[in-house]
Amino acid sequence: MTAMSELLKTHPQKPTHHFDEITACIEACFECEQVCVGCADACLAEQRVAELRECIRYNLDCADLCAATGRLIARQARPDPSLWRTTLEACAQACRSCAAECAKHQDRHEHCRVCREVCERCEQACTRALQAMPTGSAESRH
Amino acid sequence: MTAMSELLKTHPQKPTHHFDEITACIEACFECEQVCVGCADACLAEQRVAELRECIRYNLDCADLCAATGRLIARQARPDPSLWRTTLEACAQACRSCAAECAKHQDRHEHCRVCREVCERCEQACTRALQAMPTGSAESRH
Amino acid sequence: MTAMSELLKTHPQKPTHHFDEITACIEACFECEQVCVGCADACLAEQRVAELRECIRYNLDCADLCAATGRLIARQARPDPSLWRTTLEACAQACRSCAAECAKHQDRHEHCRVCREVCERCEQACTRALQAMPTGSAESRH
Amino acid sequence: MTAMSELLKTHPQKPTHHFDEITACIEACFECEQVCVGCADACLAEQRVAELRECIRYNLDCADLCAATGRLIARQARPDPSLWRTTLEACAQACRSCAAECAKHQDRHEHCRVCREVCERCEQACTRALQAMPTGSAESRH
Repeated sequence: MTAMSELLKTHPQKPTHHFDEITACIEACFECEQVCVGCADACLAEQRVAELRECIRYNLDCADLCAATGRLIARQARPDPSLWRTTLEACAQACRSCAAECAKHQDRHEHCRVCREVCERCEQACTRALQAMPTGSAESRH
Repeated sequence: MTAMSELLKTHPQKPTHHFDEITACIEACFECEQVCVGCADACLAEQRVAELRECIRYNLDCADLCAATGRLIARQARPDPSLWRTTLEACAQACRSCAAECAKHQDRHEHCRVCREVCERCEQACTRALQAMPTGSAESRH
Repeated sequence: MTAMSELLKTHPQKPTHHFDEITACIEACFECEQVCVGCADACLAEQRVAELRECIRYNLDCADLCAATGRLIARQARPDPSLWRTTLEACAQACRSCAAECAKHQDRHEHCRVCREVCERCEQACTRALQAMPTGSAESRH
Repeated sequence: MTAMSELLKTHPQKPTHHFDEITACIEACFECEQVCVGCADACLAEQRVAELRECIRYNLDCADLCAATGRLIARQARPDPSLWRTTLEACAQACRSCAAECAKHQDRHEHCRVCREVCERCEQACTRALQAMPTGSAESRH
């Protein structure tokens, strides 16, 4: 059991019916943030950095959206389903775009292959969290 | 002229047709981030903190989304219109929810009144940036 | 092997002589960020939130310093030893203060116990990274 | 009066004897974060990006440290003088290093000139906040 999973189990208002998906999503977001920061730096250190501008840009965008999303979802008390949904969709989109860009360079740069895999995992984790969330405006706080 | 506006004017790939809206949006996001961080801390210091849990939560969510959005939009080179749009919508929603919650406490807590105003300005700045952006999938990079 | 460790192994300028300590420090920082965000939210949801103001404050400070430090250290190319050192010291201090505050509440709140352990691990990881770093101004880039 | 200054004036535990220096420091940190994010992106879009790797790296480090420091200092309630001091020193150092690197390119890239000026202002603001803070361990909470 990870520390985050252990912490969430002791939260006074932990989710009751989609705990695993939410926990996996938080951890995937923070993993994706750090790997994207690392991939941007690795790309920047490559000899042919000029060909990797687009990749660096998507790495930075994806890292920032994953950071915000991971923090949002880590706040379990009284979540706002509508805000969670929009944010998870933005994060999934950033992961998808970053993975697609990394895929173009993964034959030449192993770090782009690792980053693509992590982005794909995070996109899936966001999608699963979205599917696990209750639907309908009744749950919304506003 | 602000430093950010000056910097963007010297960017080799600055936007040509919606410069003012984009610059205003970046500055509004970073202003909203800092004011939301400050409002959460002020709420936490209030005697009746228990009544302000929801407000603190929205302050923190809004701060994180504004930070990610401000950084995304500050990266002017080759923007991804589709990702910008989803992110700006998530940010506008976070600002709207935070403003609505702050409005409930603004009679008793002046900092919630200031924060509400800043969140409303940021929501408007995001909406104007969205309207100024080109539409259609043709502009999308993917 | 974690994804971050795999990514760093493929970085064109990965560290040669303190790889394990640096990798462990990055991962500890991002783990500590998410757990601190979660602990702040759990504290905020507790009935006696007024007694936990100090803990929430340290959680938020520690989360932000861990985020910045994790990102700084994840950028492996041409590190600035002097800046790394100051930042790692600030992060270790934030972790120490947060752990000390969490320790006061851990008998009543299990999430504070989890958070204290994670903060202590992160402080140790920062300290080990500091010890593994080369000393002397010769390595400094400035 | 800025929104942040207005918010801090309504904070229940606002600082009494160094309000102006602290407010100026918070605003300088958030301004520096956004300008550094923008300068990194502008550098990345330059034709001779390979010569600007070091500058991009310092831009990103400085942005992250300014973000963490700005948030820390924006939390006015019961500050921890010792942690503030270490963090402000790390931030001032990041600003100094980034300004020094930007200075090397400012003749060719106007955005590096703007970024250098903003980093210098932020370093000064951090230094002034440090000088305004009470000294001695008596103020420390731990």
